[in-house]
Amino acid sequence: MRKINIGIIGLGTIGEGLFRIINSQKSSIRKKFNIEINIIKVCDLDYKLAKKLKIEKKLFTNNYNQIVEDPKIDCVVELIGGTTIAKTIADKTLKFNKHFVTANKALIAMHGNTLSRVATKKNLHLMYEASVGGGIPLLNSIKESIIINEIKSFHGILNGTCNYILSLMAEGKEFNSALSEAQKLGFAEADPTLDINGYDTAHKVCVMAQECFGYSPNIKKIHIEGIEKINKIDLDVAKELNCKIKLIGKGKIKGKDLSLSVNPMLLKKDNPLFNVENEFNAVLIDSKNLGPIMKYGYGAGMLPTASAVITDLIRLNTDISSKAMQISKKYNLLNINDSKSRFYIRFFVVNKSGYLAKITSKFAKYKINIEKIIQNPHITNLKKVPVVITTKKSKFSELDKLLSEVHKSGLTSKESIMIPFEE
Amino acid sequence: MRKINIGIIGLGTIGEGLFRIINSQKSSIRKKFNIEINIIKVCDLDYKLAKKLKIEKKLFTNNYNQIVEDPKIDCVVELIGGTTIAKTIADKTLKFNKHFVTANKALIAMHGNTLSRVATKKNLHLMYEASVGGGIPLLNSIKESIIINEIKSFHGILNGTCNYILSLMAEGKEFNSALSEAQKLGFAEADPTLDINGYDTAHKVCVMAQECFGYSPNIKKIHIEGIEKINKIDLDVAKELNCKIKLIGKGKIKGKDLSLSVNPMLLKKDNPLFNVENEFNAVLIDSKNLGPIMKYGYGAGMLPTASAVITDLIRLNTDISSKAMQISKKYNLLNINDSKSRFYIRFFVVNKSGYLAKITSKFAKYKINIEKIIQNPHITNLKKVPVVITTKKSKFSELDKLLSEVHKSGLTSKESIMIPFEE
Repeated sequence: MRKINIGIIGLGTIGEGLFRIINSQKSSIRKKFNIEINIIKVCDLDYKLAKKLKIEKKLFTNNYNQIVEDPKIDCVVELIGGTTIAKTIADKTLKFNKHFVTANKALIAMHGNTLSRVATKKNLHLMYEASVGGGIPLLNSIKESIIINEIKSFHGILNGTCNYILSLMAEGKEFNSALSEAQKLGFAEADPTLDINGYDTAHKVCVMAQECFGYSPNIKKIHIEGIEKINKIDLDVAKELNCKIKLIGKGKIKGKDLSLSVNPMLLKKDNPLFNVENEFNAVLIDSKNLGPIMKYGYGAGMLPTASAVITDLIRLNTDISSKAMQISKKYNLLNINDSKSRFYIRFFVVNKSGYLAKITSKFAKYKINIEKIIQNPHITNLKKVPVVITTKKSKFSELDKLLSEVHKSGLTSKESIMIPFEE
Repeated sequence: MRKINIGIIGLGTIGEGLFRIINSQKSSIRKKFNIEINIIKVCDLDYKLAKKLKIEKKLFTNNYNQIVEDPKIDCVVELIGGTTIAKTIADKTLKFNKHFVTANKALIAMHGNTLSRVATKKNLHLMYEASVGGGIPLLNSIKESIIINEIKSFHGILNGTCNYILSLMAEGKEFNSALSEAQKLGFAEADPTLDINGYDTAHKVCVMAQECFGYSPNIKKIHIEGIEKINKIDLDVAKELNCKIKLIGKGKIKGKDLSLSVNPMLLKKDNPLFNVENEFNAVLIDSKNLGPIMKYGYGAGMLPTASAVITDLIRLNTDISSKAMQISKKYNLLNINDSKSRFYIRFFVVNKSGYLAKITSKFAKYKINIEKIIQNPHITNLKKVPVVITTKKSKFSELDKLLSEVHKSGLTSKESIMIPFEE
């Protein structure tokens, strides 16, 4: 029987889940995995949350140094999030020769590569299964089996908040009422900014790029677009086009070129991600020998994420060398401006006289081929008439320029949106 | 750098795939996993297949004892299938203190429990990731993470041949032409009996029951029904009911009761398995903390299955105790006769006068509530008129009796079918 002594830093949602699962399933974990997980100390800002969980005072500290420096602790579990204090904790944990397990995608996205190098050198584990699609589970199966084959691409619905909001909007809700329903049900945070604006997904795309392609991207060089500009009308028109709009985090390799992006996309019915609704997450991975595979489940949430942390704890005894992040491949990170897609464009026309001729003349000017024009698809308000145009394959940068020019002309409001079709 | 010396027995499709991946990805496997896989010897009935793969004569044998007894070999990879010679090979491999890796679901379904006990006692690995959903991948992620949580049920589309045929039939093809198309494309074997009659799926259900519930069932006690009786008309009517028919291998726990079954089922649109088409496999697993998760991919095929075998080889160095099959739980295996569902029943009426009153009177007799009657949905032939009846929740055994009685009455042909709805 192996014993692992852990210290938990952060008693928020995941910390609580971890505490609960370890306590309720201690004997079944012991039996199934021949391992005993002991919680030696927990840390939070004050005793309030610990008290709620009935954690004895002597197990509690509000000073994380008492965990990272404690010689009885083998492994520190960091569950506070962010990249400032969490980074200090990670550095110190490795410095004091302890394994480091985290659910912190931002930390791994920004510093995973550096932390991993330090950990490997010291023969320590850096583990972060819970950071992306914890409830699916995802990362360890990439690391340990899928990666045997050359991974060509991943496409993921990686944020439950956005997916929940888009699902409700497809059923007829407006953005704001969908968001408040998501908040009421606990699928969106009080401050959902990082979910809605795509940054949470972008952090996960960075982690996935590390795992799938051995490439550690600079998040600033990734095109990140959230769902703020999506209107209920877009979901309605998408339905007429037999499509759904989903926020997709994507990575794709073509020779030496790598493209990474986060933006809403129009998916067709035959896309395996098409039916992923509500708070569910899913990732589609295409590799050389396996072909397309999809993994689907709750991406986050108290118990799924905590279960992923436990997976990492159970794996602490395995060979480290094969688990380390391997950042070695050099790719040329493409700029989204050079990418080509079919596009869905929705304008809100503010001045109606002869607007269509004027707008379409811009398409002619930029040599962008129009596939379909859907006029006034769902008039809700006569001062703001929606017009949807779908294009043939066009260059992102050209369409972007076209959109600014149309806005400047005063024909449309600034809320226009361009959404690529995922083929 | 660890070295693993393997002997391969069986150079059929998977053997060829394994040989190809090991040769083409040797250096990338070495780099990613710090492991070198060396093929010491290969065995097949004659040199023909080995010659095709350009395997040197000195590496070849047609006597498997030269592999299981070779002291240079650490691990035997059995890829011949079946439960006779394969069982002998497994026994001898463990006797000669070598690890045993296999893609053989029948062997693991029938003898996995016994073999696992021997292997564990001798501190040897028995590994079979390739046996179920090899290309997904599936088993190791159950074994190493999902199982942390109490698994409540699994529902799987586990046979690519059946799923391919059902997909083509849903597009309008007759059974026989769908089957020959599947054979032409390599998605069905020359003799597809074990796929079509559900036994391949049943073997996989046994392996899944071992992994998910720690229960090793007697395959004879499982209700096994294939897709032979499905008619194109059933797919058409299913579509009208907003459903699809899929061959489902299923395991479900309720308290101390366990139900295991293989049969066609009607799935509704909101079922994550609804959109799994063609040769794809998928498994939906529901567990206490994770909730529903789905894994989707090619279940079989040369390279996906071979890739799963390599996953096992790479894992050979990990802790054995936590990987062993753990058959301990005692469940009461339910008989399908006691199960209750809504049912779809399709008769072919041979004598038309007043048939409906006569048939429905049988439903009254057995107190089975009719939900909907769809008469002559797609008349193809006036001598054989289809009638579809859907029922409210009813007991399997009662409906089964009702069907025999209707047949005996001479009202219908023997090709009638009852398919449960999966709710």
